[in-house]
Amino acid sequence: MTTEMEIICVGNELLIGKTLNTNALWMAKRSTSLGVMVKRITVVGDDIEEISIAVAEALKRKPQFVVTTGGLGPTFDDKTLEGIAKALKREVEVDDKALRMIKEKYEAFAKEGRIEKAELTPPRVKMAKLPKGAKPLNNPTGTAPAVLIKIRGTTLIALPGVPSEMEAIFEESIAPQLRKESGNTMFFETSLFVDDIMESALAPLVDRTMHDNEYVYIKSHPKGEENVPHIELHFSMTSKDGKNAKAELGKAIVQLSELIQKEGGKIRAQKRASNP
Amino acid sequence: MTTEMEIICVGNELLIGKTLNTNALWMAKRSTSLGVMVKRITVVGDDIEEISIAVAEALKRKPQFVVTTGGLGPTFDDKTLEGIAKALKREVEVDDKALRMIKEKYEAFAKEGRIEKAELTPPRVKMAKLPKGAKPLNNPTGTAPAVLIKIRGTTLIALPGVPSEMEAIFEESIAPQLRKESGNTMFFETSLFVDDIMESALAPLVDRTMHDNEYVYIKSHPKGEENVPHIELHFSMTSKDGKNAKAELGKAIVQLSELIQKEGGKIRAQKRASNP
Repeated sequence: MTTEMEIICVGNELLIGKTLNTNALWMAKRSTSLGVMVKRITVVGDDIEEISIAVAEALKRKPQFVVTTGGLGPTFDDKTLEGIAKALKREVEVDDKALRMIKEKYEAFAKEGRIEKAELTPPRVKMAKLPKGAKPLNNPTGTAPAVLIKIRGTTLIALPGVPSEMEAIFEESIAPQLRKESGNTMFFETSLFVDDIMESALAPLVDRTMHDNEYVYIKSHPKGEENVPHIELHFSMTSKDGKNAKAELGKAIVQLSELIQKEGGKIRAQKRASNP
Repeated sequence: MTTEMEIICVGNELLIGKTLNTNALWMAKRSTSLGVMVKRITVVGDDIEEISIAVAEALKRKPQFVVTTGGLGPTFDDKTLEGIAKALKREVEVDDKALRMIKEKYEAFAKEGRIEKAELTPPRVKMAKLPKGAKPLNNPTGTAPAVLIKIRGTTLIALPGVPSEMEAIFEESIAPQLRKESGNTMFFETSLFVDDIMESALAPLVDRTMHDNEYVYIKSHPKGEENVPHIELHFSMTSKDGKNAKAELGKAIVQLSELIQKEGGKIRAQKRASNP
């Protein structure tokens, strides 16, 4: 069975076009490489109602994982945990373990002389207010703990939006779960770059190659415009057997290359098949 | 009344983390600058069912605009129009005007010697198959027409995924509509970059400044980690009066700068308020 994931990115900066959503790219790529299928990415603003609706909708579709990024910090606009609590119809409450994690961080900062007082001000305590039943996850590079909640068949995880923190927690606490859940399935991909053939002329050749290579998915990406033909053909498949996957991809590449050359297209370059 | 928009990006390449979603960034930024509020960005794969569900959900929330990007081309995996048709419970059918637009493009390519034959092969005809009642929009730089459908209070527009085509059609056919709908509302923003103060210490100062400047929204973006304080404070507001907006933003910046310096923080830089 395919392991499915949805990603929810929280932040007005994404909706006003201030920030490029590199978190979604990183997490989608990393999860895909671990054999997980990302089904949807949703971006909503710093609004409890909007977050709550997006989370509730995602849970309703019953993917094995829902991962949010952003909105865990100490400021008023960090609303993800309240949004999740609302979606789950639970209260938020100060979690002792989370509070201890945060306290230790600030005590360390005070010891290093980075801050004067390690006191637990309301904005700092705020980061420990988790939805009931949630478990804090260690944040190795920042202060706000991440949060994990099991809801029937879905594991819901809330990660911070700062990329270095998001990535560190993902690698430490999430990647091992994904790998286990996907049963060591891996994703393999390769690309063929072709010139002098239009996407509309390629279409039937791609259809035929996919028909003859049933596990391989091929998608064409026009890189210039349709009238200046310069196209990347992306080949991908998931498999637990890397050697076999690479052989299957290689076979499809050879077949499509030959079909393209027969139609007058030129093969400009080819990547080696790999797990990203 | 705020003019609301949802963006739906279609493409497996976004879900496997192969492609950074620069289309969403561009469209969100441009729409925001025209006074429109982007409420949600949704990314789904090249799957009729997934597209159809995302479109139906967006329409149900009744924003004035729903704009999709991607999936309008000639290949089998270009499924956006079928997804939209399914969401609207309509058939797709060859649209005469769209077919004429496509025919003219290929005839021009043939005349220029870029292709041998301008014949309307099935993949080329496919780009003219629109949901019933849809109107094709001119694509000044590519071949696949964009598509516009009015559904009660919502204008649904499907744009191609190739950035140059998406942007050209947006400027030609969509920006004027957005500007009109938003009644020349504009978005203004500016940033303050501060050092030597933690986000958790900034939080109450931001709260106070927002309280005293009711039209200004301030969001803090930690640029390092919470323990290496280096923060961008982003100030924004929408207004029909540019001069007034800049004055309001300036007032908030002065107030927050003073509060930060009182707490020992340093103002490193400040951007000038502008409409992006």
